[in-house]
Amino acid sequence: MGYLDIFEQCCSGRFPKPKKGSFRKEFFCSLWLNKGELKRLQFPKIVRITKILFFYPKKDSALYLCSMKFELQVTDSGSKARAGVLTTDHGSIQTPIFMPVGTAGTVKGVHQRELEEEVKAQIILGNTYHLYLRPGLDIIEKAGGLHRFNGWEKPILTDSGGYQVFSLKEIRKITEEGVQFNSHIDGSKHLFTPEYVMDIQRIIGADIIMAFDECPPYPCDYAYAEKSMHLTHRWLKRCIHRMEETQPKYGYEQTLFPIIQGSVYKDLRVQSAEFIAAQNQHGNAIGGLSVGEPAEDMYAMIEVVNAILPQDKPRYLMGVGTPENILEAISLGIDMFDCVMPTRNARNGMLFTTQGIINIRNKKWEDDFSPIDPGLDNHVSQFYTKAYLKHLIKCQEMLGAQIASIHNLSFYLWLVGQAREHILAGDFSSWKNSMVKQVMQRL
Amino acid sequence: MGYLDIFEQCCSGRFPKPKKGSFRKEFFCSLWLNKGELKRLQFPKIVRITKILFFYPKKDSALYLCSMKFELQVTDSGSKARAGVLTTDHGSIQTPIFMPVGTAGTVKGVHQRELEEEVKAQIILGNTYHLYLRPGLDIIEKAGGLHRFNGWEKPILTDSGGYQVFSLKEIRKITEEGVQFNSHIDGSKHLFTPEYVMDIQRIIGADIIMAFDECPPYPCDYAYAEKSMHLTHRWLKRCIHRMEETQPKYGYEQTLFPIIQGSVYKDLRVQSAEFIAAQNQHGNAIGGLSVGEPAEDMYAMIEVVNAILPQDKPRYLMGVGTPENILEAISLGIDMFDCVMPTRNARNGMLFTTQGIINIRNKKWEDDFSPIDPGLDNHVSQFYTKAYLKHLIKCQEMLGAQIASIHNLSFYLWLVGQAREHILAGDFSSWKNSMVKQVMQRL
Repeated sequence: MGYLDIFEQCCSGRFPKPKKGSFRKEFFCSLWLNKGELKRLQFPKIVRITKILFFYPKKDSALYLCSMKFELQVTDSGSKARAGVLTTDHGSIQTPIFMPVGTAGTVKGVHQRELEEEVKAQIILGNTYHLYLRPGLDIIEKAGGLHRFNGWEKPILTDSGGYQVFSLKEIRKITEEGVQFNSHIDGSKHLFTPEYVMDIQRIIGADIIMAFDECPPYPCDYAYAEKSMHLTHRWLKRCIHRMEETQPKYGYEQTLFPIIQGSVYKDLRVQSAEFIAAQNQHGNAIGGLSVGEPAEDMYAMIEVVNAILPQDKPRYLMGVGTPENILEAISLGIDMFDCVMPTRNARNGMLFTTQGIINIRNKKWEDDFSPIDPGLDNHVSQFYTKAYLKHLIKCQEMLGAQIASIHNLSFYLWLVGQAREHILAGDFSSWKNSMVKQVMQRL
Repeated sequence: MGYLDIFEQCCSGRFPKPKKGSFRKEFFCSLWLNKGELKRLQFPKIVRITKILFFYPKKDSALYLCSMKFELQVTDSGSKARAGVLTTDHGSIQTPIFMPVGTAGTVKGVHQRELEEEVKAQIILGNTYHLYLRPGLDIIEKAGGLHRFNGWEKPILTDSGGYQVFSLKEIRKITEEGVQFNSHIDGSKHLFTPEYVMDIQRIIGADIIMAFDECPPYPCDYAYAEKSMHLTHRWLKRCIHRMEETQPKYGYEQTLFPIIQGSVYKDLRVQSAEFIAAQNQHGNAIGGLSVGEPAEDMYAMIEVVNAILPQDKPRYLMGVGTPENILEAISLGIDMFDCVMPTRNARNGMLFTTQGIINIRNKKWEDDFSPIDPGLDNHVSQFYTKAYLKHLIKCQEMLGAQIASIHNLSFYLWLVGQAREHILAGDFSSWKNSMVKQVMQRL
C-alpha cells in the first residue's frame, strides 16, 4: 500500500466511475495527462484504489487524487486518548503529534535539517498571513510552493491567517465578505475573503489547509460568540466550495480542515461541532481556545466537541499549549497540536525538560556543567551544558536561542511520542498523571 | 609521531634532563602524576622526544610539556606565500588559516558541530575582554577552561582584550601598570595589567595566548606611535615573565604570541619586529593594522615586518580582513588570520561567494532559486536558495543570519584552503591574481 492507496475521485463524465482494485499506472497517467499535471506526480508502478470515498460528477477535472488517510490504531481504554497515523503526499505523521510553528517559512532559529534530524518534526506549520505579506504569493508560486521554497519536504499545515488578522485590532474591519486589514509591515491595505484565503493556501502549497474563521477574543459575550460562530460557518461553506472548484497547484493533494468555534459556551460548541462534522472533511480543528480562558474551560470545550466529532478523522487543537495542556488534551482525544510556546519561551530562557521546567536565567545554573537534558536523544540537549546555555541566553547570543529552541521542540516531540507509546502500550492514563507532575515542576 | 613529539622541558633537579628518543608513556606519566595533572592528558602509548628546545632549571615544575610545533612545508617561488602545519595539544592547523571569531565563547549563530563539520574551522578565537566580563573567570575555571565550557575541542586562540579595552575610549585610562576601564555592561571598574591578562588567558585555557599590547588608532602621530610601541614592548617582557612563572591550568600547553606594533611607520615596524623576533616565542603577530589605513600601507607594513620575522614560526595578522586582503597578505607570508567580517557582514546580508560578492537584500535575488553557492561543499550553501535567504534576511529571521554566517565562514575557510592547495601545487601567484578579481566582483 503506497501513499496513493485511497482515491477521492471525480469524473467529468468522460471517464467511468473508478472502482476498487489495482491498476497499472498508465491508466491514471493518461487521465492526469489531460490536465497537464502528470510531471509533478511520482507514481508507483501499480496504484491501488482501496476505498472510494465519494464522487463528484459535477467537477470538470478528469480525476481528483486524494491520498490523505487517517488510520486510528488504538484508543486508550482508560481515557479518550488515541494513537493513529495520518498519511499525506509528503509523508506520514504519527499521532498524537506536535507541529512546530514556522511563521514566515522558518521555525525561528532552527535549520530544516535540525527540524528533521534533531527535533524529529513530522509536520510543521506556516502562517498564511505572514507568508502572504513576505515573501508574497508570486515568489512562493515561482518557487513551486513553500516546500520547494524553504526545503522542508515533509507535510506542512498552514493556518488561515484569521488569527493574525483578528489580532490587528486597530487596523482591520470584518464584514460578511471577509476581513480588510492593513499590513503590520508597511500599512498597505488587503482583503482576506474565505475564497482568497483558500487560493493563497493553494499557492503556498500546504498539505493541510485551514478554513478561514473568526477567532473571537476571551472573554467574549454570548451574543458575539454566537454571531461570530455563524459567520465562521458561512465562511466555511465558501471555503469548501472554493476548494472543490480549484485544484492543487503542485500535483500533491491539499485537504481542508474546518474549525469549530463557539468560545466557552457549551451549546455553541455543540452546534459548531455538529455543523463542522457534517461537512465531512478529512480532519477537524478546534479553534478559539487557549486565548486566556481557564484551562478547565478549555478541557470542558474539548470534551464537548470530541463527543461529536467523528472518530475516524484527526482532531487538531489549535495553538495549544503547555506540556500539561497537551497531555490533558491527548487524554480527551486530540491528535494534533501547534504552539509558539516551545520556541518563544526558549528565546526567553525557559526550558521544558524531561525532569521539569528550568528558567536558565537563574543563578543556580551558572556553574551547572551537566547536559541540558540527558533524557532527550538529540545532539544539543546532550552536547551543551546548562551553564553554557545560561551564559549565551544572558549575553543574548543567537546561539542561546538556537539551542533552547531545538531543545524545547525536541522535548515537545518527545512528549507526544511518549504519549503515543503509552497509548499503544495501554498505560497512558497512569503515565500521563505522573508525567504531568514531573514535567510541570519547577527545577 | 603523535602530538607529543616535541617537548620543552624544565626540571626541578629531581629529574635528569630529558634526551631525544622514545619512551614508554609510563615515564612521563610518572612525572606528570607528581603534578596531579595526568588525568587531563591523553597520552599515546609511546611518546617521542624529537627535539629539545630549551631547558628551564629554575622552574619548580617537574616537567613542562610543549607540543606546539610549526612545520613550514612549502614556500611559494613566485611570492612569499607559505604552507605549513601548526600543531597544538588540541590538534593540528593547516596554514594559511582563517580563525572564526567566537567573541563570547560562541561564533555568533553557528553551532560548534557546524563550525567543525560545515565551516571546517580548525581553530577559533575567543575575546578575553568579553569572556572575562561574562561568564567570568570563576565559571570558566570551574568548567575546566573554555574548551570544556563551550564544547569546542579544537584549538582556541584568545586575544588579549587590549583591542576591546582601547576602543572604550571614554571609559578607560592607560598607565605604565596597565589599563583601567569600566565594563560596557554594568560600568564596574577593572584593571588589566600584562600579568593579569596572562592569568586570565591561562584560566580561559587558550592554546595560543596573545600578549597584552596597546593598539593605537589610525591616524596616529609618530610620537604617539613610538611611545605606544615601547609601552607594548615593556608590557611584552612582563607578559613573557608571567608566562614563564605560571603553568597551564588544564594539562595542555599554552603558548604566547607577541604582537608587533608601530602604526604605519616603517622604522617603528622594523624596530618592533626586531624586538618581537628576539623574544623567540612560538609564533608572532602583527597588530594595529586594518584599523582604517589604506590597504597599501597595510601591505607595506606586512612586507617590512615579514622580512624580519623568523621563517620557522607562524605569523598572525590580527583582525584582517576582506578576501582580497587575506590573499594579498598570504602572498606576503602571513599564515593566520581572524576577522569579524564574514559573520558581521553575513548578518547584514552580505555574502562572499566563490563567484563574487552578493548583497542578498537586492531585489534581483528574490526569485533566484539557485543554491547560495554550489561551489562550496557545505550543507547550507547548497541546500538553501538565494531567494529563501533573501526572504529570511529581509524578515530579520534568525535563520537568515545563521545560514549567511555558516556560508561566509565556509567561504573564508575554502579560500585559505584553496590558497594552501595552490601554494603546495606551486601556482599560487597566478591563481591569487585571478581569484582576487573573481571573489571581489559584485554580482
